[in-house]
Amino acid sequence: MTNDLTDFLTSWRAVERIGATDALGVERQAATEEDREARDWFRGFADRHGWRTVVDKIGNLYALIEFTPGARYVLAGSHLDSQPRGGRFDGAYGVMAALHAAERVQAHVAEMRGMPRHNLAVVDWFNEEGGRFSPSLMGSSVFAGLKDREQMLDRVDLRGISVREALSSIGYLGAEEPPTPAAYVEIHIEQGRVLEREGFPLGAVDSSWYTQKLDIEITGEQSHTGATLMQDRRDALHAAAYVIIALNEITTDYPPESLVSSVGQIVVEPNSPIVVNRRVHLVGDLRADDPAIVKDARNRLVVRCAEIAESHDVEIVAEDFDIRPNLYFPTEGVELQEKVASDLGVGIRRIQTMAGHDSIALNTVVPTVMMFVPSVDGVSHCEREFTHDADLLTGVDALTGVLLRMVEGALDNVEPAPRY
Amino acid sequence: MTNDLTDFLTSWRAVERIGATDALGVERQAATEEDREARDWFRGFADRHGWRTVVDKIGNLYALIEFTPGARYVLAGSHLDSQPRGGRFDGAYGVMAALHAAERVQAHVAEMRGMPRHNLAVVDWFNEEGGRFSPSLMGSSVFAGLKDREQMLDRVDLRGISVREALSSIGYLGAEEPPTPAAYVEIHIEQGRVLEREGFPLGAVDSSWYTQKLDIEITGEQSHTGATLMQDRRDALHAAAYVIIALNEITTDYPPESLVSSVGQIVVEPNSPIVVNRRVHLVGDLRADDPAIVKDARNRLVVRCAEIAESHDVEIVAEDFDIRPNLYFPTEGVELQEKVASDLGVGIRRIQTMAGHDSIALNTVVPTVMMFVPSVDGVSHCEREFTHDADLLTGVDALTGVLLRMVEGALDNVEPAPRY
Repeated sequence: MTNDLTDFLTSWRAVERIGATDALGVERQAATEEDREARDWFRGFADRHGWRTVVDKIGNLYALIEFTPGARYVLAGSHLDSQPRGGRFDGAYGVMAALHAAERVQAHVAEMRGMPRHNLAVVDWFNEEGGRFSPSLMGSSVFAGLKDREQMLDRVDLRGISVREALSSIGYLGAEEPPTPAAYVEIHIEQGRVLEREGFPLGAVDSSWYTQKLDIEITGEQSHTGATLMQDRRDALHAAAYVIIALNEITTDYPPESLVSSVGQIVVEPNSPIVVNRRVHLVGDLRADDPAIVKDARNRLVVRCAEIAESHDVEIVAEDFDIRPNLYFPTEGVELQEKVASDLGVGIRRIQTMAGHDSIALNTVVPTVMMFVPSVDGVSHCEREFTHDADLLTGVDALTGVLLRMVEGALDNVEPAPRY
Repeated sequence: MTNDLTDFLTSWRAVERIGATDALGVERQAATEEDREARDWFRGFADRHGWRTVVDKIGNLYALIEFTPGARYVLAGSHLDSQPRGGRFDGAYGVMAALHAAERVQAHVAEMRGMPRHNLAVVDWFNEEGGRFSPSLMGSSVFAGLKDREQMLDRVDLRGISVREALSSIGYLGAEEPPTPAAYVEIHIEQGRVLEREGFPLGAVDSSWYTQKLDIEITGEQSHTGATLMQDRRDALHAAAYVIIALNEITTDYPPESLVSSVGQIVVEPNSPIVVNRRVHLVGDLRADDPAIVKDARNRLVVRCAEIAESHDVEIVAEDFDIRPNLYFPTEGVELQEKVASDLGVGIRRIQTMAGHDSIALNTVVPTVMMFVPSVDGVSHCEREFTHDADLLTGVDALTGVLLRMVEGALDNVEPAPRY
């Protein structure tokens, strides 16, 4: 093992301890004390390497490595925030790999006494997860101009704390301009089983699934659980149970593995043991490769909600939000990954992502490369999320190769994807 | 209308404004700022009448009217706390009626230059509702020795604040001994439709329904909503939806109106829009007049939970708690109410309570009388809870008559009910 790779694992062991849970996961939600600690670690790493750090007005954190004064930047990174009781790898791996790949690219450039076309920046995007503050991909979407910064700063968590307040409280509501981007590259764990099942250490992401969320509000009437006859009740939680089941079972109307759906968040009022609930708010999530499937499922769910409202004497309002069309990453970036893998002598296959990533927002602005390493059992957003050290290290090698060529301008003639 | 009754309505209008919501309800949960304000009002009323107030070590507030030094006290009261967005009448009416009835009893005793067998105390029991801190009937259950005070002081709300901290913060964690009780009387709105439907202004409660709660914990596994195939999920919320429906539908297995059930409180983890939920905690509630129905329904639900656990690959643990057997109020107290109603020339019928009340705890310690006035549409624990002024005033008259006779020792030879 080279010194570079020992260094990577040393860094990795340091960061995975920040917000560590007993069951080997991490709890490092956006703009919490643990997020601050991880960001301070990032800044310390940059300081030790003599890289200037910048925090923009939505809390994205950049480490800048200037080779060529005035040139644009190739950005490499991901996010250090996690889901509640999340895994150690989702996001953090991409940032750590980028820091170490950048170190190697810088050494290479110094050795060659080169003057590459682009500068290099490592980035930790703010609030990719969206667990505490909705929507997800918040920092990268503001960077890409897909979301309004002021609106995002006003979003609040379930305790009423705004993004603005939370970022200020950890000292990461910046005032600086972000670097001007030339291209973006991100490496991430797959969060699925394809690479593991087929034995590939690398995946070159070529496209993302079509996704949309449904904001569902169910309104009944509050009453006494003991003293109210069953037929007199307008129980919002009872109706919500049918909506949750409908959202799950809709997937069986389509070919196997073609649609996934879920209800991740539920807010219940008044949520008192002795009161029939007045109001339930659900966030439903639909994803498929084929947009027609998502749209059809969404329409059937809206009809189903109307039926449930009718039969339970409650009101149900379902609204679409956070619609993300299929996104295609540039073929040139996919081919670049394949070339680097071939040079390294490791296997790679093209793959889709069902999960959202900051790269999806960046891909609408600059040529973007998305890389995967395997996930054991395909599990993620949980404490037993796991990727073997060997796969982490192969990923750093591959990212270094891709980043080096991107800094040299390999994707300069590629158009970004359309905005969504 | 007599001055006494004008006074009652004046007091009532003052207290219903404390924590008032836009839709004519109140938000006055236990040990909140609004609860403090209502308690301060109670204390002010006592001060103006020269009654000494006492706060015990679980936050129960008493106003003491001493007629006969060294004698025990007849307690009259209910609770000033409310459900979240609750009604104005539930609890508060009983305290306000007791304050005004006590004023009239005191005047009567003074006029008679009597030396009654018992002293008189008006009481505001802490946390009857159990909405913020479980279990309900907290203050009266500690008073009655049915719950351990230290354990209750350690209970926390959903934000992690303990009863001890909350009571201290509003200045109502007392250090004094409560009065020694001789008997207890409580008047309350019915929270059902029986009196309204049959046109009775008063109900003499003779017994309570058998009730029990089920603490249901569903444990699955956290995973990514987008990237996890449907068949790989162990979704605790999806399984919980079936449990919620099972709890509701079990009532249809028994004769109409013989069993009520509900799920009032649900806690979901991690409750993030993009995560399949790991854990759901539900509080189920079963109530019937016939204990055999509750027990049978409980057993069927436990079987149903095991089936749901099996088919959804989750773990479900259901535990019984807060079991309250049928409780019978002393016949002598029921007959006393009937005599007072007859003297007043108003109708009264015997009635059961499906809801829990502080009187249920007190009934295990001293002879206890429970009185009802009608509720419009039978609704309660909601903002449109309503009782007409005329019914409120009839209730104060009846309570005054009952209380006067209890102070004179009318129930002295009655045994309390067995402890549960």
